[in-house]
Amino acid sequence: MANRLLIKGGTVVNEDRKFRSDVFCEDGLIKKVAPDITDVPPDTRVIDASGKLVMPGGIDTHTHMQLPFMGTVAVDDFYHGTRAALAGGTTMIIDFVIPPKNESLLQAYDRWRGWADEKVCCDYSFHVAVTWWSPQVAKEMEVLCQEKGVNSFKMFMAYKDVFMLRDDEMYYAFKQCKKLGALAQVHAENGDLIVEGSKKMLELGITGPEGHEMCRPEEVEGEATARAITIANQASCPLYVVHVMSKSAANAVTQGRQRGCVVFGEPIAASLGTDGTNYWHTCWRHAAGHVMGPPLRPDPSTPGFLMDLLACGALHCTGTDNCTFNANQKAMGKDDFRKIPNGVNGVEDRMSVVWEKGVANGKMDACRFVAVTSTVAAKIFNIYPRKGVIAEGSDADIVVWDGEATRVISAKTHHQAVDFNIFEGMCCHGVPVYVVTGGRVAVDNGQVNVVKGSGRYIPRTCYSDIVYSAITQRDKANQPQPVPREPYDGPVIQLGKPSS
Amino acid sequence: MANRLLIKGGTVVNEDRKFRSDVFCEDGLIKKVAPDITDVPPDTRVIDASGKLVMPGGIDTHTHMQLPFMGTVAVDDFYHGTRAALAGGTTMIIDFVIPPKNESLLQAYDRWRGWADEKVCCDYSFHVAVTWWSPQVAKEMEVLCQEKGVNSFKMFMAYKDVFMLRDDEMYYAFKQCKKLGALAQVHAENGDLIVEGSKKMLELGITGPEGHEMCRPEEVEGEATARAITIANQASCPLYVVHVMSKSAANAVTQGRQRGCVVFGEPIAASLGTDGTNYWHTCWRHAAGHVMGPPLRPDPSTPGFLMDLLACGALHCTGTDNCTFNANQKAMGKDDFRKIPNGVNGVEDRMSVVWEKGVANGKMDACRFVAVTSTVAAKIFNIYPRKGVIAEGSDADIVVWDGEATRVISAKTHHQAVDFNIFEGMCCHGVPVYVVTGGRVAVDNGQVNVVKGSGRYIPRTCYSDIVYSAITQRDKANQPQPVPREPYDGPVIQLGKPSS
Amino acid sequence: MANRLLIKGGTVVNEDRKFRSDVFCEDGLIKKVAPDITDVPPDTRVIDASGKLVMPGGIDTHTHMQLPFMGTVAVDDFYHGTRAALAGGTTMIIDFVIPPKNESLLQAYDRWRGWADEKVCCDYSFHVAVTWWSPQVAKEMEVLCQEKGVNSFKMFMAYKDVFMLRDDEMYYAFKQCKKLGALAQVHAENGDLIVEGSKKMLELGITGPEGHEMCRPEEVEGEATARAITIANQASCPLYVVHVMSKSAANAVTQGRQRGCVVFGEPIAASLGTDGTNYWHTCWRHAAGHVMGPPLRPDPSTPGFLMDLLACGALHCTGTDNCTFNANQKAMGKDDFRKIPNGVNGVEDRMSVVWEKGVANGKMDACRFVAVTSTVAAKIFNIYPRKGVIAEGSDADIVVWDGEATRVISAKTHHQAVDFNIFEGMCCHGVPVYVVTGGRVAVDNGQVNVVKGSGRYIPRTCYSDIVYSAITQRDKANQPQPVPREPYDGPVIQLGKPSS
Amino acid sequence: MANRLLIKGGTVVNEDRKFRSDVFCEDGLIKKVAPDITDVPPDTRVIDASGKLVMPGGIDTHTHMQLPFMGTVAVDDFYHGTRAALAGGTTMIIDFVIPPKNESLLQAYDRWRGWADEKVCCDYSFHVAVTWWSPQVAKEMEVLCQEKGVNSFKMFMAYKDVFMLRDDEMYYAFKQCKKLGALAQVHAENGDLIVEGSKKMLELGITGPEGHEMCRPEEVEGEATARAITIANQASCPLYVVHVMSKSAANAVTQGRQRGCVVFGEPIAASLGTDGTNYWHTCWRHAAGHVMGPPLRPDPSTPGFLMDLLACGALHCTGTDNCTFNANQKAMGKDDFRKIPNGVNGVEDRMSVVWEKGVANGKMDACRFVAVTSTVAAKIFNIYPRKGVIAEGSDADIVVWDGEATRVISAKTHHQAVDFNIFEGMCCHGVPVYVVTGGRVAVDNGQVNVVKGSGRYIPRTCYSDIVYSAITQRDKANQPQPVPREPYDGPVIQLGKPSS
Repeated sequence: MANRLLIKGGTVVNEDRKFRSDVFCEDGLIKKVAPDITDVPPDTRVIDASGKLVMPGGIDTHTHMQLPFMGTVAVDDFYHGTRAALAGGTTMIIDFVIPPKNESLLQAYDRWRGWADEKVCCDYSFHVAVTWWSPQVAKEMEVLCQEKGVNSFKMFMAYKDVFMLRDDEMYYAFKQCKKLGALAQVHAENGDLIVEGSKKMLELGITGPEGHEMCRPEEVEGEATARAITIANQASCPLYVVHVMSKSAANAVTQGRQRGCVVFGEPIAASLGTDGTNYWHTCWRHAAGHVMGPPLRPDPSTPGFLMDLLACGALHCTGTDNCTFNANQKAMGKDDFRKIPNGVNGVEDRMSVVWEKGVANGKMDACRFVAVTSTVAAKIFNIYPRKGVIAEGSDADIVVWDGEATRVISAKTHHQAVDFNIFEGMCCHGVPVYVVTGGRVAVDNGQVNVVKGSGRYIPRTCYSDIVYSAITQRDKANQPQPVPREPYDGPVIQLGKPSS
Repeated sequence: MANRLLIKGGTVVNEDRKFRSDVFCEDGLIKKVAPDITDVPPDTRVIDASGKLVMPGGIDTHTHMQLPFMGTVAVDDFYHGTRAALAGGTTMIIDFVIPPKNESLLQAYDRWRGWADEKVCCDYSFHVAVTWWSPQVAKEMEVLCQEKGVNSFKMFMAYKDVFMLRDDEMYYAFKQCKKLGALAQVHAENGDLIVEGSKKMLELGITGPEGHEMCRPEEVEGEATARAITIANQASCPLYVVHVMSKSAANAVTQGRQRGCVVFGEPIAASLGTDGTNYWHTCWRHAAGHVMGPPLRPDPSTPGFLMDLLACGALHCTGTDNCTFNANQKAMGKDDFRKIPNGVNGVEDRMSVVWEKGVANGKMDACRFVAVTSTVAAKIFNIYPRKGVIAEGSDADIVVWDGEATRVISAKTHHQAVDFNIFEGMCCHGVPVYVVTGGRVAVDNGQVNVVKGSGRYIPRTCYSDIVYSAITQRDKANQPQPVPREPYDGPVIQLGKPSS
Repeated sequence: MANRLLIKGGTVVNEDRKFRSDVFCEDGLIKKVAPDITDVPPDTRVIDASGKLVMPGGIDTHTHMQLPFMGTVAVDDFYHGTRAALAGGTTMIIDFVIPPKNESLLQAYDRWRGWADEKVCCDYSFHVAVTWWSPQVAKEMEVLCQEKGVNSFKMFMAYKDVFMLRDDEMYYAFKQCKKLGALAQVHAENGDLIVEGSKKMLELGITGPEGHEMCRPEEVEGEATARAITIANQASCPLYVVHVMSKSAANAVTQGRQRGCVVFGEPIAASLGTDGTNYWHTCWRHAAGHVMGPPLRPDPSTPGFLMDLLACGALHCTGTDNCTFNANQKAMGKDDFRKIPNGVNGVEDRMSVVWEKGVANGKMDACRFVAVTSTVAAKIFNIYPRKGVIAEGSDADIVVWDGEATRVISAKTHHQAVDFNIFEGMCCHGVPVYVVTGGRVAVDNGQVNVVKGSGRYIPRTCYSDIVYSAITQRDKANQPQPVPREPYDGPVIQLGKPSS
Repeated sequence: MANRLLIKGGTVVNEDRKFRSDVFCEDGLIKKVAPDITDVPPDTRVIDASGKLVMPGGIDTHTHMQLPFMGTVAVDDFYHGTRAALAGGTTMIIDFVIPPKNESLLQAYDRWRGWADEKVCCDYSFHVAVTWWSPQVAKEMEVLCQEKGVNSFKMFMAYKDVFMLRDDEMYYAFKQCKKLGALAQVHAENGDLIVEGSKKMLELGITGPEGHEMCRPEEVEGEATARAITIANQASCPLYVVHVMSKSAANAVTQGRQRGCVVFGEPIAASLGTDGTNYWHTCWRHAAGHVMGPPLRPDPSTPGFLMDLLACGALHCTGTDNCTFNANQKAMGKDDFRKIPNGVNGVEDRMSVVWEKGVANGKMDACRFVAVTSTVAAKIFNIYPRKGVIAEGSDADIVVWDGEATRVISAKTHHQAVDFNIFEGMCCHGVPVYVVTGGRVAVDNGQVNVVKGSGRYIPRTCYSDIVYSAITQRDKANQPQPVPREPYDGPVIQLGKPSS
């Protein structure tokens, strides 16, 4: 594969504007962005982008490739998963290292790196989950930040007795994030209520996938989201809410921001593209195929609501929570929804779904599309402008996008390993014609052509500007002050004696 | 004292309307409500109420007389406290039995009865606090409901390691309330955050009363309120939020109701009549005199906001959290705000404060005043129409109120035992000229004249209509239903083997 | 028909409580409410109400019997309309006198009285519409209040060039209401936007009933509602929003109340019982049968939302806007939705619909049902306690209600004159077994038996307590005050000269 | 003055990021942005920006220089006004052409150009007000867009009988904006209510500046804002709300955006930096000096609230409504607040006030500061990336900012012509050390050095991307569709005959 590439005649779309320009790449980097570039070496491959949009490759902020879960393992591994990502126009994923309780975070990190490095077809990075609390955990967080390129940690408010932290542990974890300049992330659901709700459903004889939603309805997510924002605000720590699934959770984020909390909200392809009515589908496999946590919501106006907030800046970037299980795995819970492995697809279809529901539907423009699929994530996770923008010096992660073309999503044709697709049958405008990752053409006029292990781990430094600048200054400017007073010099009761 | 009483020429004010009427009482009951009653026995005492309002005596839903707390005891005992209540127009209080963790609820109940029965000058009743959880506690709740006339239980989300319950314990307690037809109550503050916030303040060198508010600001109360509402809703249990102190908490209650949750909100005299700017007062004793939990809020528009909600029905009834400590007791925390005993006065002044800020200020009419100071409480706690209304057959608990007269509140003149008054200097319209409790004239043309031990314990039965009717029907009408489906008959993964 | 009636063995339900009691009526009044009444004259008719609820008859706050509209006349006249009302448990209606622009309000009032008095089968009263503004109108409002028993006036923000008032005219009308102690009512939709929206729909080729909703969607109602509340608040005048049809309008009312505005909201049977998806029905007659203004809303969660607010006290009483047109009348607009006469049924079914969606569904209890179907209306329109309560001295307007029985609503069986029913096929719990109006049994074990012309016009006096007490006091307590200042004594520019 | 400039050693701040870089300018343009630029011509002036921020010059979106108003003229003319702008770091203003009713928009435009062109010291542009409606106005709007570089039109909802449009005229104006791809702007206050409120205040004897606020309190602005958003949404026209002065108005904008309306909100220096308590100042001149429309709000938490919304993206860019009158002009209203010319300063101090209250106070970071003071305005008004960014090819409008230095604002030292400053005494962090306009150094190490008439009129084209992309697509994707139906074939009533 030639390491020089000229993308000609397209319209570059960045977060801030659209403009006609050619783009020249070399050695994995964007070297020149200018109209009518002609002086390129003769071995330069030229891609015709006329009539197309040239956009920074997507960043999926939330994946779980080959996640070990409930005794089985997610079927999209780092190879199939990143290949599918590229097929859909996503050129970087951020996955999660999730140590079981009491495991060393560092060991888990190493284990995950071992799984990923040899398989990834595009660049990637890791958030790390804090699933328990101790001084060792605090220390390892520091090492991860300073030596391993991790600047974000996820805490679970659900999965009681497995991953869940109590409020005081959350506070300690948030304080540590603050101290390190890292971003705290939360899975926001009330884990106690889920356990009790699940019991209740089973007592009522509800064992199917609809029970999964009914045992943890919207308010269970909304409550936890508001709580996490409050705890983070008390710790003066920035917060990132992963997988915003409901109006309630989105409102909590929005209201938090409006009163000055530093909080970001991440809706995902699933919550933007489909809804929880699917849990009432009479085909068990169909219903189970949508099981994830937090669940999709039965209110069918949820996706449009979330997209409106994403469009106007009240929500920020988009992931997928891609974590896929085949029918035979989902079937572990055929008699008890609690045993259905949680997770859905999305890494391949996110860009198309957001384009269809967002841009084609007139809720956002192409610039905002770039922002919510790529740029804002790059800024939050501190890899901007290396990622997230078509600019000289940035990585050559590029998608040439046909906003008018359509494709129909189907498990029959998708590149993911899983045997189901929650967007089955959806006709999307917006097709990636060429996808370039690190200067390599991974999708070539629609043909997928990837190299296993060619992706790189992207280390991320702490103190991202968009996350930390204001809050750091705020602490300084608004430090609590004692009231100067004369000391109290009256009598003091002696305990044990009755008060007079 | 004659046991017959004719209150002549006044305007009776009930929740539903005002009307000119005489009121005749005998043997502690209201026997006749009619205009121009003349056929009364000759030994009937006649009170001239012309130009005055004749209203049901106030019910203070929230007091802590002679509470043992932090090694000392609240100075207003059941004698001084109920005497002060009567002086202000309140003819019934509902106090709290608060067992320490692991103490039998029944034993605590007996202890409190022992303290109260011999001292109370007016009728009273008890809520019981659930400060720990076990099968024994559940059983004792049942006994309390069925044998002891208790129909309300308070759970603390604050006072970590002392009274605080975790979310799952809250859920169990709520379920038990639901099972019994009792009303769940919460002290809503995030106890974990208070502990951490306190530490932070002390680290910053803030030891004075202002630290008490700053370590547990408004959002700490708002968060917990929203959480409690969610937990109660998940348990399908009615909820009563005691001492609503902030806009945030009031909004949580209001929003809960609007989405159908059965939740009631109780602002108190303190939150309706003053604010948290007092914590920044340069006199330590003044500042400490306002220390209570949750604290008053520094936003000075809070009281008016709460009164607007109380006026329009978004909040429901009023208590005081009366729990008073003298200067020498407050002084235990002179060097550390955490050691200041929490509590303020209110039992005497509640009626005047609500009248002044509510009625005289044009936010509510006299009928709504009666509702929020008496009737709604009587309904919620299931003692209506025995209490809360001027009607034939009701208890002769009556206040003859001069809505035009004024009085200036002061510790120098109040009837409470405590040496401080948070409403010091407030000029209130609304003065109780006569107060009748159980047919006895306890305030006689302004002179207080009470009988120690003459009050009765008022047992309350479960399943109050206003609390339970709708939610019981709702459970029946909206029971979750499983989706009828063909069973899944595909392959199921064998754990231990890799997924295909 | 005997003029004595004993209703035995039922459970009386008033706004404030339920209790087992007999009810004895004589000469059109309730004479005694007591358990086990036995001492009645021998000619007393006895009705067995055991197992039933005995409630105050319904008050429909909003009807348009035999309204002349668009050249035709509503088919339910004052006979058929009030007969149907009684059949459904409603014993009083409040209809509207609507003078065309420039007609004398008094003449219109007389005309409407002429139509009604000879036909009504139950008591009734009149609101009067103010459709234009002049000193004469102001004067006639005064006469109507002082001599004709009118205490409520409706202003239209829609029906441009026909009934619509501009904002300044609204303000003048509100000021006059305030001066008289009358209640201002509004039809809240932006009339300018409706005209323009209608044009737009027709330009797009949309002529069917769906265009009726699309030309005046929810925000057009929400905007006007918020505007009316602001104008009323500026005029310090109480406001009553008729036919609250949408979440937006309901939110405007709720938010207004929460910031202290005196505003009441009236949802109607239609908005509580069905929704605007019917406008998209492929049967034109079905779709047209639902055309009313403001329209029903396509968001299917609207009725439940409104019921939640009605249950918790954020909305207040219920009407129907009953104004019925047969298929051949609706058909005037078969090619242009603007020509479809606006109006739907409801007067017969309101009680059942509110019971089914409110009580049977677990959103409110029976007491609140009585409040929202009868008591609150009686208070607002100042006919309480004559109407709206089962109490000694009140009018014998009573419904004996079987809350467990069901009936299926249908145009085939209803008592209204119109050939369509918007609730067709709805199975409702809640059936009126006996309905008593002015002491006469109008529904007798399900059989309707009315006397044409037997109803009375009920005059209403101004300054209803619930409407005016607080706002009158507020004006007094919060009158704007000038700032005391030294006069400005510096130079003043001479116009015409340039400023220096 | 040399036309080459090298700004060395600073930190460039753009909307998207901060980075260390030199900036080289030539011929009024930025020619190079790179670290360590050394190869510059020898006559290049070098400015040392080490330790400083290098930001795009401010754009004040809202000024009224030398506005003729109430018979007098604003004292800051286009010379003094733009000189003061530059002194404060603002390098472009957008002023308003405001034709009196019935005047040709084009003639007014020419008149204003005549005033401005010879005086402006920095670049500028014009919004044009639509103060009346006719086909001629529509036509002239088209000419202004197509030939005069105008892409924004302001409509007044206040100033009744002077500038105010009625709702239908607003709708027509919005439709015309939409047709042209121009942005509709509104001054949102209910003009009818202001007239009536003013009368009321004078009747109450309130003639001082406090009456100005009390006659048009917050809800009068909030109502109109919500109405404008609804009208614009019905016209499918983007909307820009000028001078957002209150929480209510800001909430209306925020809620509009969250439900998908394309609406932008512009708070101003005054509303972000001070509040309406000043109207109660006992010095008349002080109080009058703050009179503007809409007024500042007495709620002192307003500025912080608006800044929070500006920080989180719910509000968008900042202007000043700079329109200044001296004491002797304000004094026209010394006996009647209605005659006080409306207007305050701000053009010089906006940047410092936003920095102090926003950045120094920890509510936003420097990137967001650049966005809200410059970049977003440039995008909305379609002059990006010519303005609003430090990038190669952009105009050399640059401010070198010392974020740590402070200055104290005072009328004694400011560069504006007016004799008063609403920010008097405010100590601001954030000082422009150098200000470059079109490549000229207008502030040179703090010394102001401008050239009268050197500014240019900046024409702006329609269909700004950020304003029009989504809404254009939305219209296409969501065009209303008729329901396919069989025609109604039943009977149709013949008018004049009674309905059957």
